[in-house]
Amino acid sequence: MTLAPNLPLAGTPAPLSPDQLEAALRDVGARRYHNLHPFHRLLHDGKLSADQVRAWALNRYYYQAMIPVKDATILARMDDPAVRRVWRQRIVDHDGEQEGDGGIARWLKLTEGLGLPRDYVVQGHGILPATRFAVDAYVHFVRDRPLVEAVASSLTEMFSPNIISERVAGMLANYDFISKETLAYFEKRLTQAPRDADFALDYVKRAATTVEVQQAVIAALTFKCDVLWAQLDALHHAYVVPCLPPPGAWTPGAERAA
Amino acid sequence: MTLAPNLPLAGTPAPLSPDQLEAALRDVGARRYHNLHPFHRLLHDGKLSADQVRAWALNRYYYQAMIPVKDATILARMDDPAVRRVWRQRIVDHDGEQEGDGGIARWLKLTEGLGLPRDYVVQGHGILPATRFAVDAYVHFVRDRPLVEAVASSLTEMFSPNIISERVAGMLANYDFISKETLAYFEKRLTQAPRDADFALDYVKRAATTVEVQQAVIAALTFKCDVLWAQLDALHHAYVVPCLPPPGAWTPGAERAA
Repeated sequence: MTLAPNLPLAGTPAPLSPDQLEAALRDVGARRYHNLHPFHRLLHDGKLSADQVRAWALNRYYYQAMIPVKDATILARMDDPAVRRVWRQRIVDHDGEQEGDGGIARWLKLTEGLGLPRDYVVQGHGILPATRFAVDAYVHFVRDRPLVEAVASSLTEMFSPNIISERVAGMLANYDFISKETLAYFEKRLTQAPRDADFALDYVKRAATTVEVQQAVIAALTFKCDVLWAQLDALHHAYVVPCLPPPGAWTPGAERAA
Repeated sequence: MTLAPNLPLAGTPAPLSPDQLEAALRDVGARRYHNLHPFHRLLHDGKLSADQVRAWALNRYYYQAMIPVKDATILARMDDPAVRRVWRQRIVDHDGEQEGDGGIARWLKLTEGLGLPRDYVVQGHGILPATRFAVDAYVHFVRDRPLVEAVASSLTEMFSPNIISERVAGMLANYDFISKETLAYFEKRLTQAPRDADFALDYVKRAATTVEVQQAVIAALTFKCDVLWAQLDALHHAYVVPCLPPPGAWTPGAERAA
């Protein structure tokens, strides 16, 4: 369904050592993780209006909501119970033990704190089509590509603690409509993400021992960076300058007419 | 994999007549077809640089290349030989009878006429991730949704003859790097698209006789308009103002370094 992605290691003669592979994966993040996107700088530096922060939180909800679907898709492809026991914790983290618990519920605290009605957010009518296409591409990727690539695509979590620390500090300092409580989602992720990333990185380093598979896992992480970047591109294009939201997308106040 | 799309007819008590359904489908095009996108106006009015036209042609190639894959996916789901006999012509039109023939080859005439190396275009390395996500979303849609919705998603062809006439006249008049020969793709589509659209519209009008299915086919056409619109959004965002191409995307001259 997709043409061949960029293969940064094309021409490399011998497989990388596990440490070299880790360095190559970290280099993808250093060049392409979405902390480099202008929208993130604006968000952290307090340069966005409340409506622009709403647009971000609304669209990002769709990503959050699909993460356990993505992880269940990966879980269904794992044949080792020991590996599944570890991976299933991701689904628990996002879905919680009961109503009101878990990462998705915590994201809804953020959107509710921003004044977006819960039903409007959950229905997803106002999100940018580009958000949906990018997030769905991620779910399709982990279903269709070899398992080691699916696991590797989760490795953006290696880079998330830094961005989360920046984000929480910057948003609390700069926006009076943001509180520590509405940012509870990120607090949890500071411990969950490194634990998940450590396991996935170890898995990838053990499984990717040939040049071909190493190229494929690096391409998988690049693809995932594209998924995150495209979401910020769409937000920036629709809500920053020039404002050009596509038809049917959320604009300030549309949630009240919905 | 997707949340429920907007259902413009929600609350309608009785099914529409076939003519009313056609009118509702045409109304989707009047409101959301990509001829309304600023990028198209710039393209037709000769306001784009040669590099901006190259970016459009390069990205749109991926869409063109996936159209026969999309149509083969639909063909594989049709159980009536009479219907398949009609639908298969779409694949012939795009793939041709031999090397150098067909819609994809004609699109490559355009990109070659614009000075983009054929291999660079066909490999697809420089296209925007958002292009890939949107086009792949279209292919996944016709695989995963009911057949009548898959057929309905093709109905943007009802609106294409107008845009093609505008585009060919506008581009020939305004760009000295565009010739009638490089636009050969569109010449053919002026007769192919209405023939295809007539058949698909008739199919949808016969099959969509309940409120639920009528809402679903209108949503399918809306989805397809989103697919086209998102591609122009991404181009506009990356190559018009402000210039912000995502990492790895084509920039003028990148094809020479590739």
